[in-house]
Amino acid sequence: MTHTIREKRKLLARVRRIRGQVEAIERALESESGCERVMQLIAAVRGATAGLMAEVVEEHVRTHLVDVAKHPGALNGEATDQLLDVVRTYLK
Amino acid sequence: MTHTIREKRKLLARVRRIRGQVEAIERALESESGCERVMQLIAAVRGATAGLMAEVVEEHVRTHLVDVAKHPGALNGEATDQLLDVVRTYLK
Amino acid sequence: MTHTIREKRKLLARVRRIRGQVEAIERALESESGCERVMQLIAAVRGATAGLMAEVVEEHVRTHLVDVAKHPGALNGEATDQLLDVVRTYLK
Amino acid sequence: MTHTIREKRKLLARVRRIRGQVEAIERALESESGCERVMQLIAAVRGATAGLMAEVVEEHVRTHLVDVAKHPGALNGEATDQLLDVVRTYLK
Repeated sequence: MTHTIREKRKLLARVRRIRGQVEAIERALESESGCERVMQLIAAVRGATAGLMAEVVEEHVRTHLVDVAKHPGALNGEATDQLLDVVRTYLK
Repeated sequence: MTHTIREKRKLLARVRRIRGQVEAIERALESESGCERVMQLIAAVRGATAGLMAEVVEEHVRTHLVDVAKHPGALNGEATDQLLDVVRTYLK
Repeated sequence: MTHTIREKRKLLARVRRIRGQVEAIERALESESGCERVMQLIAAVRGATAGLMAEVVEEHVRTHLVDVAKHPGALNGEATDQLLDVVRTYLK
Repeated sequence: MTHTIREKRKLLARVRRIRGQVEAIERALESESGCERVMQLIAAVRGATAGLMAEVVEEHVRTHLVDVAKHPGALNGEATDQLLDVVRTYLK
């Protein structure tokens, strides 16, 4: 995935945030936090992971389904937006 | 969605099967079936609905993201397969 | 599932609404509606099915995990609420 | 969550495996791996997180919904298994 520097930074920031959230689960288990707290922390990781996937899928769709250099204008913008709406709904 | 006759028939068959599954939930509730049975029937509807969505998304991606008549060969087959793999994983 | 009349009516109303939503998908396919419309209708069925499951799970937890007649006060209300919060989060 | 030592170790092992999987995503992004690889790694984190949640929910149900010391035998084993089956289906 040859990201632009900007996209790569944004994705890496998301992944690092998820790593921090996973470490929080670890600490919660070690400190004998209640189940409720642990379940909330796991749900947070799940949500953040879904958000990361949605972002990578969007980038994949917008940059790899069609080689824009060879086929400029071939990707239908409206159909793409409709697809990504569905993806985001299911990734929530 | 201007389906070919064949695609449309396949999708309609899926939808009718789902309707039958929903009616089975209705009958189960009316006949005071156990919660377990009702929960299994609801899970079946969920699975069948996800399968239907995966099929419609696939058709949408393969036929609407790129106007094949205007841009033949523009849709990258490998990237499309990778996308649909992810979609199916999340729609299970 | 020996529902009270009130609970049963509420669940049946939900199931009938879902049946109506499934029939709307059928009509949309038959009338050659766009993919976007079809995908939105399928997403609606998925959401309503998840809502129905959440309701049945809640009833199952509150009425079947513990036989209240034999063990009054045995079910921990707070722990039950925490569980149902997680279930609803995942069923969205 | 006052885990027994054995349960706590098992959950901690799962969380550490997830941390390792998140770090693999980080490395894949840094080394410009393809989208496909990145999406597969994210899907792995999602699956592992769901497995962890299923385990914590199971422990929560089996140990916190009923105070076993005060109400021995109050938790219906069959109804509990049915509930956990549904939870696992939805957490996949």
